[in-house]
Amino acid sequence: MSEPPDEFEWIGRLLAPLAKNAPEAFGLLDDAAAVPSRPGQDLILSKDAIVEGVHFLADDPPELVARKLLRVNLSDLAAKGAEPYGYLLAIAWPKRFGWPEREAFARGLEADQMRYGLKLLGGDTVSTPGPLSASVTVLGWTPAGRMVQRAGAEPGDVVMVTGTIGDGHLGLAAAKDALVGISYDHLRWLADRYRLPEPRLGLGDALRACAHAAADVSDGLIADAGKIAFASGLGIQLDLDALPLSDAAKAWLATVPDPTAARLELASGGDDYEVLITAPRAHAEALRGACGMRGFPLTVVGGVTPRGGVRVIAGGREVEHGAGGWVHR
Amino acid sequence: MSEPPDEFEWIGRLLAPLAKNAPEAFGLLDDAAAVPSRPGQDLILSKDAIVEGVHFLADDPPELVARKLLRVNLSDLAAKGAEPYGYLLAIAWPKRFGWPEREAFARGLEADQMRYGLKLLGGDTVSTPGPLSASVTVLGWTPAGRMVQRAGAEPGDVVMVTGTIGDGHLGLAAAKDALVGISYDHLRWLADRYRLPEPRLGLGDALRACAHAAADVSDGLIADAGKIAFASGLGIQLDLDALPLSDAAKAWLATVPDPTAARLELASGGDDYEVLITAPRAHAEALRGACGMRGFPLTVVGGVTPRGGVRVIAGGREVEHGAGGWVHR
Repeated sequence: MSEPPDEFEWIGRLLAPLAKNAPEAFGLLDDAAAVPSRPGQDLILSKDAIVEGVHFLADDPPELVARKLLRVNLSDLAAKGAEPYGYLLAIAWPKRFGWPEREAFARGLEADQMRYGLKLLGGDTVSTPGPLSASVTVLGWTPAGRMVQRAGAEPGDVVMVTGTIGDGHLGLAAAKDALVGISYDHLRWLADRYRLPEPRLGLGDALRACAHAAADVSDGLIADAGKIAFASGLGIQLDLDALPLSDAAKAWLATVPDPTAARLELASGGDDYEVLITAPRAHAEALRGACGMRGFPLTVVGGVTPRGGVRVIAGGREVEHGAGGWVHR
Repeated sequence: MSEPPDEFEWIGRLLAPLAKNAPEAFGLLDDAAAVPSRPGQDLILSKDAIVEGVHFLADDPPELVARKLLRVNLSDLAAKGAEPYGYLLAIAWPKRFGWPEREAFARGLEADQMRYGLKLLGGDTVSTPGPLSASVTVLGWTPAGRMVQRAGAEPGDVVMVTGTIGDGHLGLAAAKDALVGISYDHLRWLADRYRLPEPRLGLGDALRACAHAAADVSDGLIADAGKIAFASGLGIQLDLDALPLSDAAKAWLATVPDPTAARLELASGGDDYEVLITAPRAHAEALRGACGMRGFPLTVVGGVTPRGGVRVIAGGREVEHGAGGWVHR
């Protein structure tokens, strides 16, 4: 094994080009970035970490790992109604990540920076004797005081979710060759969804105008609904029969003996990176229109109730869902 | 081994109290924080990561690890002339960190939040099969456009450093029981310096008024001088005989066969967390006064030259220093 790449060289040759449009980052030649205030706006900050073997697989291509890392963070901005702006990156490289792997990682960052209008503002690179771990601190902007919070749901709100639910969960199984009974095309599509989620950006205006509360679905629909319910001091009822499913998930569902248990599994699995929204029923159509314009569906999956916690319904009957939700361990 | 603590419980019981004075953090019940803009000010962001076995020792108390993590980040703000404001924390816990260890970690965060006027704004907690790794994204404020940069040194500037140099390097050796020939008190003092550096905050006004360039010394005096030189497109000459040394470092120096090689080692070792400053000679006294008021010395260790790179002098002669600087690997 050759000597690990020099941190200075990695920053100068591979990362500095990612900051070239960011005077705030001083060419990554400094210890810090300076972000000018924008009067009338709030800077929205979120920070998500990923660990090899926990949040992605050891043989996932570094380019996709980088893109997933950005996207799981962008998914938070999407749910908060914020416009993406920039990010800081901290990464702990294992020895086996030499120059080609780091180059691929930087290529992934560059691809999604361009796609989502982000710039690299700074960060840190260290080495680790353990698995690759990395975190992104993502920055975005909203009009002052207008971030869409988890706390804000109101009794009678409808609960809606973008896109489809369960593909990340099935995609992880597919990526591990642990899913059977469906076509190769479906398996590949699911694994791709797991490796490269699509943050539901562009809803900012509609969310701030119409939603009472929102959060991204990263730990599972039930768990993330529970967090909105807890933050709002209310309850949420979810209808498993209303779950929006992809063709691949429907194909899988057709192969299982207990469809209700299977739907519960999909609503408990992680890595969806959809946006969960509560809003007055009168605003549902406007939100659905905003999603439709961006090419993804918005589906009513339940409602906000005065009673605390999450209640899950299937076939008109309540279903036990345990603690609910996927915990990355 | 008991079940690892629930992330929700860790956040709610141990971290949320650290955000109680931060309405920006929504009680840590949200995915994001919202920082209101401050017209006329820049938000200064820096992000440093630490890994067990690389930046701290596996048997270091979790309370001290937490405090060191905050302090290495605060050290960046100190060198940039920024006023500390808040931070986001991402941490990957190994299984062996149960509730008591996490409680100790949170206690450490709390102690230094109070000491330095910081508030917790958000972050992420994940698990890892590897060593503990964590990063802090620290936020501070400066007047708009007034962050003290690395790029900015001018030919003829004097180069000064706060505090003493080499204690972090010797302290690591002491903490590993790899240092001999000096008293137990000195060994303990050095190990404490390694485990708990003191960020040189409070110099903001003086730095912004008097300094041309500044950076914190984390990778070693020579390496960090090299970064200022590179960013400024100039050279720096350092005089090893002028190195400010603690009593403990002086005691160690008295035991070694080659004092020049030993001084070079101290100037190449990491973990000092002092501030390296270049300024016109006419401003040196004002800066020294500002440091003196805060109880630490400021020492002229060299000057800025037109020629690139770092030149190291001892006894009036140039000393070879190789690549110069400590790389955490």
